[in-house]
Amino acid sequence: MITQENCNPDCPVARASDVLSGKWTTLIIRDLLTEKKRFSELARSLGGISPRVLSERLSMLQGEGLISKKIYATVPPMTEYQLTPKGQGIRPVIEAMAEFGSGLLVRR
Amino acid sequence: MITQENCNPDCPVARASDVLSGKWTTLIIRDLLTEKKRFSELARSLGGISPRVLSERLSMLQGEGLISKKIYATVPPMTEYQLTPKGQGIRPVIEAMAEFGSGLLVRR
Repeated sequence: MITQENCNPDCPVARASDVLSGKWTTLIIRDLLTEKKRFSELARSLGGISPRVLSERLSMLQGEGLISKKIYATVPPMTEYQLTPKGQGIRPVIEAMAEFGSGLLVRR
Repeated sequence: MITQENCNPDCPVARASDVLSGKWTTLIIRDLLTEKKRFSELARSLGGISPRVLSERLSMLQGEGLISKKIYATVPPMTEYQLTPKGQGIRPVIEAMAEFGSGLLVRR
């Protein structure tokens, strides 16, 4: 149950919003919900994102402990990203967004 | 179940993200989940928001059909905002964010 009273001083909705705000962040998590992915796979899947922005978002998510990065010593080196157990906690948020977003698309 | 395949070309997560992205938008919805509120109540509750940004966000949400605005012919005029039934569809998203955000706060 959400009340305003339990939203001060550390509002969990605001905290989640800090982490998830921004379209790309949500979409990166969406992409990683199904399976781990390489940088190039994420870049392709996310279409319009620039490599610089993708790097920044991945670093931020790693800093928050929501995704982990694994580097394979291949030539060229391969980098894989996957959700941590903490990051898997975002699944219900993305699923609720998918449900809400579906309603918006239907009624458009 | 979220798969990437069902996310093209109109991804519901991206659509929801378009509407909800930005911290203030999420927090305005959070505030209206409990009850309708006046402009001044929202401004106070949202602390750091400027009146201009609050107006913009409210107009956007109204344009999306997620909130409705009622103007009372008092002196001075009073404006009340409340979630529409469509806007109530965001409740599960905010509740999932509250749950996820609580976990982030605990582990901080």
